Amino acid sequence: MTILRIADGQVLTPELTIERADVLVDREEGEILAVETKPEDSENPMDEMDTADEETLDASGGLVIPGLVNAHTHASMTLLRGYADDKPLAAWLEEDIWPVEANLTPADIRAGADLAAVEMIRSGTTAFSDMYFHVPEVAATVERSGLRARLGHGVVTVGRDEETAREDLKTSLDVASEYDGAANGRIRTAFMPHSLTTVGEGYLEEYVGRARDLGVPVHYHANETAAETSPIVEEHGTRPLVYAAERGLLEAGDYVAHAVHVDEREIDLLAESGASVIHCPASNAKLASGIAPVQRMLDAGVTVGLGTDGPASNNDLDTFDELRDAAMVGKLDAGDASAVPAEAAIGIATAGGADALGFDSGRIEAGRNADLAVLDLSAPHLTPVHDLVSHLAYAARGSDVRHTICDGQVLMRDRDLVTLDERAVCEAAADHATDLVRRTNEAQSS
Amino acid sequence: MTILRIADGQVLTPELTIERADVLVDREEGEILAVETKPEDSENPMDEMDTADEETLDASGGLVIPGLVNAHTHASMTLLRGYADDKPLAAWLEEDIWPVEANLTPADIRAGADLAAVEMIRSGTTAFSDMYFHVPEVAATVERSGLRARLGHGVVTVGRDEETAREDLKTSLDVASEYDGAANGRIRTAFMPHSLTTVGEGYLEEYVGRARDLGVPVHYHANETAAETSPIVEEHGTRPLVYAAERGLLEAGDYVAHAVHVDEREIDLLAESGASVIHCPASNAKLASGIAPVQRMLDAGVTVGLGTDGPASNNDLDTFDELRDAAMVGKLDAGDASAVPAEAAIGIATAGGADALGFDSGRIEAGRNADLAVLDLSAPHLTPVHDLVSHLAYAARGSDVRHTICDGQVLMRDRDLVTLDERAVCEAAADHATDLVRRTNEAQSS
Repeated sequence: MTILRIADGQVLTPELTIERADVLVDREEGEILAVETKPEDSENPMDEMDTADEETLDASGGLVIPGLVNAHTHASMTLLRGYADDKPLAAWLEEDIWPVEANLTPADIRAGADLAAVEMIRSGTTAFSDMYFHVPEVAATVERSGLRARLGHGVVTVGRDEETAREDLKTSLDVASEYDGAANGRIRTAFMPHSLTTVGEGYLEEYVGRARDLGVPVHYHANETAAETSPIVEEHGTRPLVYAAERGLLEAGDYVAHAVHVDEREIDLLAESGASVIHCPASNAKLASGIAPVQRMLDAGVTVGLGTDGPASNNDLDTFDELRDAAMVGKLDAGDASAVPAEAAIGIATAGGADALGFDSGRIEAGRNADLAVLDLSAPHLTPVHDLVSHLAYAARGSDVRHTICDGQVLMRDRDLVTLDERAVCEAAADHATDLVRRTNEAQSS
Repeated sequence: MTILRIADGQVLTPELTIERADVLVDREEGEILAVETKPEDSENPMDEMDTADEETLDASGGLVIPGLVNAHTHASMTLLRGYADDKPLAAWLEEDIWPVEANLTPADIRAGADLAAVEMIRSGTTAFSDMYFHVPEVAATVERSGLRARLGHGVVTVGRDEETAREDLKTSLDVASEYDGAANGRIRTAFMPHSLTTVGEGYLEEYVGRARDLGVPVHYHANETAAETSPIVEEHGTRPLVYAAERGLLEAGDYVAHAVHVDEREIDLLAESGASVIHCPASNAKLASGIAPVQRMLDAGVTVGLGTDGPASNNDLDTFDELRDAAMVGKLDAGDASAVPAEAAIGIATAGGADALGFDSGRIEAGRNADLAVLDLSAPHLTPVHDLVSHLAYAARGSDVRHTICDGQVLMRDRDLVTLDERAVCEAAADHATDLVRRTNEAQSS
């Protein structure tokens, strides 16, 4: 057994208390072996063990936290960061995003996913969920970067002929089947119909059944905007998540993105079903979609994770921003400064997201995945320290992350990436973005 | 004349376009001398000038912007960062903040202000407005740090006997008189009654007149919470800003913090008066106060600046966070993704704040104060570049700032502080915070 000792830091416990401890990681298994508390002036029992196969990662002056979980994104949209802003969701998609997405090549997807991986590792995110196209390219990025992810191919059938629609649905099932368990188990998959309004009712019913046969969960956008919920209410006479449940799309393990416009019945339905909600506060603000009622969901027992959504509506992949945003807009939505307190926001950014994605991470305790981040606490904006839990929610940001570890492997050490060549990734992404815009403009003018 | 040449960067113009240019600064006058655009393949006219007295600051690969303006804070509350969170404004002030503030010493104030200065310089803020106590200590920090500020002593008369109240009011006028123009003109002052409800009506009328005689503007909290506006409506039968205007507190040069709960008449009154609003989106979210209707104010012609408020309700002094928050919550408030677009958010963080505080900065053009920040654009989260204005609003953060310049003096060069000893400031602030909490606990238990 080779051990990674994350030494001399303070550690965020699953109860969200702070204790001085070393975190010992079994590197082969990618698991946390032990959390060794360090009582004052006592000898360290591990000091007498054979340390030949032990590597130390210095966490002195630092805070060891579970790696953050970015549970809903479209990673390769890094190429479209800042491409179009300040427009409502429908116009933004139809006028800007979909035309350029139509020109995305597999090589673009990989360049964008690589950039996303660099950003996430640099800001302490160790797991993500991705809904996009050309999943094999994203899977290759996950494999190479060392991150953990639940991946899927996003399906749209509306406005397409049956052959194209069925091909897209089949692709989503095929990649879910083929890549589940890839990258030494770090990749899991889901069937990913884009949303309840962009995939036809008949297709949903038919293909969700096939996803169940494959044993993969379902992930989709739901109740994001008021404009998206009303057609379902009008056509089917019922709320969107009731419509989803009745068609078999709301079961334990499933997770829906956004859930901004939900009523009490839908919140209860989410809690009863065991399906999770991925809260995307920045994207929902930037597109003026609204604020998801996170405190009410938590009170009802819904599992809530946190997502950046695509970087074109954010505009970055720093999950620390979302953590702070969740606490901030949660209070605005509830009209109560005690709503979505620091502990709740940290919970949804770590354990909540891990639970939503079905990963055994998000908590620092023996037996869990060794998915961790170490924050440097020396920055002026983290001084003084009255309460590290408060700092984590309200003052820390991705740039405070010193080391990032996933599955027992160090992905960033002292702010230097280990698995990816940051400079090369940035240059490739910039080149692909330039070329993508050129091709899009040519296609539109021809 | 000694010239500072900020060389080879891209420059944000007052029209919020981007051009390749060198910015030439007259260091003695602290002014921008010229913005020298760099046409492709043309010889640089300044290259032939005598460069003996010219120093170059490398901005290659960078974006030169006006230094951000943090137009409402209580800087020394850095000592209380994370001291109490997740509580409504009234309970937070009465149960946590006021008891500990009662134990603040002048040395505490200075340690806290020094830490605030470090944070602001590191995140590209070059000017701020401070309402707190022991103003001479804050002024000493401004002098030493090289920042620009409008300072004042916050007055509360409610719950105090007349002698104490008048002493506090006199202190506010005295420091406004004594320090106006200090630090080679970088310090300006204001008379600062805490708010319309915490300073008695008679005192307001009497002392605001004296402030006018001294020629200093008035700064106060207004319309922050619903709970704060209703007593004025009930007692005086009129909206708070009408009450303020009728008592002479809403004139050109005056600036009010928050203005969350304002009606159309109050917005019109603000626009007509020439008084400004300082929008504090993070503090207003964290305390669940609400969202100021910034787009409506801008449409009405109100000058709007941006403030972090005190770091105990934020919890940092990175004005880039506020810039992004202003764009984000502005869209939520308006229910319109085109509200408070990137350009508007950047405008209030720079020119708007400078105008509110009466500083000739916030725009990069000849003759203005040389208050500038240079952002490093090489970070993954700023890659690729479709639109630098979008990046500035939605993706950049304080940690991307490479150099900070105020009044022609370099305050941070390549992330190293020039005027302050960052390590010593952080250590002193941590010590003062620990001691302050110990003294507060002792006072409460005795």
